[in-house]
Amino acid sequence: MEKPIKNDAITSRDVDFAQWYTDVCKKAELMDYSSTKGFIIYRPYGYAIWERIQAYLNQRFAETGHENVYMPMVIPESLFNKEKEHVEGFAPETLIATYGGKEKLDDPLIIRPTSEVLFCEHYSKIISSYRDLPKKYNQWCSVVRWEKTTRPFLRGAEFLWQEGHTVHESEEDARVETLSMLSIYEQLGKDLLAIPFLSGRKTEKEKFAGAEETYAIEALMHDGKSLQSGTTHYFGTGFAKAFNIRFQDRNNTLQYAHQTSWGVSTRLIGSLIMVHGDDNGLVLPPFVAPIQVVLVPIMMQKEGVLEAARSLQSELIKLGLRVKLDDSPQSPGWKFAEYEMKGVPLRIEIGPRDLAQGQVVIALRDTKEKRMVSLSDVSQQVPILLKELHQRLLLSAQQHLNDHIRDAHSLEELLDILNTHGGYVRMSVSDEHEVETIIKEKAQATARVIPFHQKGLAPTCAITGKPAKRIVLFARAY
Amino acid sequence: MEKPIKNDAITSRDVDFAQWYTDVCKKAELMDYSSTKGFIIYRPYGYAIWERIQAYLNQRFAETGHENVYMPMVIPESLFNKEKEHVEGFAPETLIATYGGKEKLDDPLIIRPTSEVLFCEHYSKIISSYRDLPKKYNQWCSVVRWEKTTRPFLRGAEFLWQEGHTVHESEEDARVETLSMLSIYEQLGKDLLAIPFLSGRKTEKEKFAGAEETYAIEALMHDGKSLQSGTTHYFGTGFAKAFNIRFQDRNNTLQYAHQTSWGVSTRLIGSLIMVHGDDNGLVLPPFVAPIQVVLVPIMMQKEGVLEAARSLQSELIKLGLRVKLDDSPQSPGWKFAEYEMKGVPLRIEIGPRDLAQGQVVIALRDTKEKRMVSLSDVSQQVPILLKELHQRLLLSAQQHLNDHIRDAHSLEELLDILNTHGGYVRMSVSDEHEVETIIKEKAQATARVIPFHQKGLAPTCAITGKPAKRIVLFARAY
Repeated sequence: MEKPIKNDAITSRDVDFAQWYTDVCKKAELMDYSSTKGFIIYRPYGYAIWERIQAYLNQRFAETGHENVYMPMVIPESLFNKEKEHVEGFAPETLIATYGGKEKLDDPLIIRPTSEVLFCEHYSKIISSYRDLPKKYNQWCSVVRWEKTTRPFLRGAEFLWQEGHTVHESEEDARVETLSMLSIYEQLGKDLLAIPFLSGRKTEKEKFAGAEETYAIEALMHDGKSLQSGTTHYFGTGFAKAFNIRFQDRNNTLQYAHQTSWGVSTRLIGSLIMVHGDDNGLVLPPFVAPIQVVLVPIMMQKEGVLEAARSLQSELIKLGLRVKLDDSPQSPGWKFAEYEMKGVPLRIEIGPRDLAQGQVVIALRDTKEKRMVSLSDVSQQVPILLKELHQRLLLSAQQHLNDHIRDAHSLEELLDILNTHGGYVRMSVSDEHEVETIIKEKAQATARVIPFHQKGLAPTCAITGKPAKRIVLFARAY
Repeated sequence: MEKPIKNDAITSRDVDFAQWYTDVCKKAELMDYSSTKGFIIYRPYGYAIWERIQAYLNQRFAETGHENVYMPMVIPESLFNKEKEHVEGFAPETLIATYGGKEKLDDPLIIRPTSEVLFCEHYSKIISSYRDLPKKYNQWCSVVRWEKTTRPFLRGAEFLWQEGHTVHESEEDARVETLSMLSIYEQLGKDLLAIPFLSGRKTEKEKFAGAEETYAIEALMHDGKSLQSGTTHYFGTGFAKAFNIRFQDRNNTLQYAHQTSWGVSTRLIGSLIMVHGDDNGLVLPPFVAPIQVVLVPIMMQKEGVLEAARSLQSELIKLGLRVKLDDSPQSPGWKFAEYEMKGVPLRIEIGPRDLAQGQVVIALRDTKEKRMVSLSDVSQQVPILLKELHQRLLLSAQQHLNDHIRDAHSLEELLDILNTHGGYVRMSVSDEHEVETIIKEKAQATARVIPFHQKGLAPTCAITGKPAKRIVLFARAY
């Protein structure tokens, strides 16, 4: 009846990436399955990562004048049906409540898959003049999409996210908002997640149901596949017309408002795992790590060891760091494996022999390097080591990304690159659905983004031979 | 098409308390109705109050070793049915999903009304030894209860809350947890909400479905009615037996675990409104107020006024205060009414005549007193004024509560007190359901709590004449 020992080897990343991913999710205690398929349990360690992401974004949202609100979790079916493209995009994957208090509901309630229609209905009531604009709201909640195939953090029937919904006087203001939020997501990647996102516009085929334009951040996973990690949408006046969101402008004329929406979700946790993780488990960038430093006493029973560990712990906590001292009866070896699995950036080993020399060992999670540091230097060294570790992870991910963007000039070349290297393939293409359909069918790849920098556009489409309209990055994706 | 001016008079509190309450909810822009009955929209100002409550509790929960998690929002009907009393308590008011992705579900999904069974199922998987205990988890989420009669914040089909769920080795540990969390809720009242909660144990009739014992915090509203504002439950081993949560104890014997749960919700916003509000609108205790100080420039166009206001604003923000400068074109009178409606604790009026004397006016929201303060003293005075204001609100609510706890020795006396004064009636009663049924029927009052202090127990029950077992506080309640 003992709990299973946790330092079981996990599947190697290069042997079976999918199994490695699942092993890390479970063994790092990020999540557990519930009895309903696709509805996962966010365990304390996984949820704490999400809370760090929330704290970062809440600060950025507040700085940029956004306000948090909470909308109902249900949408009456009749309301949901108001914007045609939107309902067509989402209806096939909705969870629908039909009974309340033992009685059949007249108007079934859709559990929100996204909240555009709820925000729109509210906005139509509270906006009447240009003086009411802009309205920049954000909501933290969970949404439900009835997916057939589910994977922890990557694709769930329920997932946690934030959804921003804004209303503006002009197209220009709304377009600026759409791109500003994309830029905040890119900064989130650089500052917190140590992930260099690829960003750009989505093709017509890949854009959000109801949007005029969708922008995305994409991250390259260790296995060469791309993961869409966040999107921002410019809606134009489509929703405003469907929901009658009008305002009197500065010239006393009634106008439809311009809208945006944007969101990131707990998918970001999946990105973190698959960008930085290794065969020992998670590797967490220091600023998002729930535990930044773990202290492991060696030969705890020896006089002075625990005292030294405790004093070091409070020294580091005073610096504002998240520090754990593990003084449980497990062996040091077990603890090393455990906190490596959990991706704790720094481990400090405190043993009697080193202490006698006035020093401790600091082990770096990413490079596995061990450094002997004098006790009096630890407080000064740890913040530097954390920053360096963050920088190393970011650079290494950037290098991996740079190495995996390749040009192709034909379907064969694209196939060859995807099969040999994975990553992104840059191609000049015409702007028809046809191109994407062919690439999807022949190479199981999709258009990830139309990059902002379009330098090097070839004259003809690599697939159809027609005039090329734009450069698109294709990849196999999650 | 102009937005309606917001300083419409609201219904007077003493003319129609219910209408006054609804007016404040709407006109202070705390909430709005959605198109689904009982599902409200938490607008930025209302949600910001909830975020303050969350921040306070998250800190207290962390200090006391609790961890945040997130469980699925759905419970399969088959799982829900496992604990008999629990299901009987909640089944009549559940919202049930029956279709997912256009297909009928084999096992309908209940939208969580509370998450005991989800936590229990997870705990049964992750607990096997006393070394795994205690487990002290908390979750922030929304829950759905299909209520027929709904009122903003007080009784909703959906509301926001936190639910703590803990597992312990011994009955004693679980009982200590149950009472510790009650005490944290009482401190939340004193420190943040300026509400003196009445606390005690619930009677058998009023306790939570599935609990051995329920404790509650109750608050006295301005109209003399009681509002249950939070509860903590000791479950014993009831759920552990239904869900097989067992652990190997320190003597190598398998034992069922002892559990608790506890929660407070957005009902607390209702408490805030009805305890402190007045005929000018909300009155917010300073530490929970989204805006603590509003700066209103008078004759903005005069040289130096806006500059002085801006400089004062940054001075106060540097102190860590939440400050708003309203430099919109509305008149000062409109702004005074607007921020009184929103319950902003302090208003600073900055006008050219006072500025020439090197001073500003500070108006206190609760007493309406205005003080002339020299510009150089504002930074030093404001924090003191905020603390004093908090203290005044707390004392005034405490006085109101003290004045409204009265002894009764018969049903007639109880009726007389409730009809004349409202508030709480202390009575010595026998321990049968019958007593509460009679009081409910004759006086529309319910047993709020069995207070911890039982001094003065009479020999016979005031209702039945049988031997009295305990003192109970009765009240009309929301």
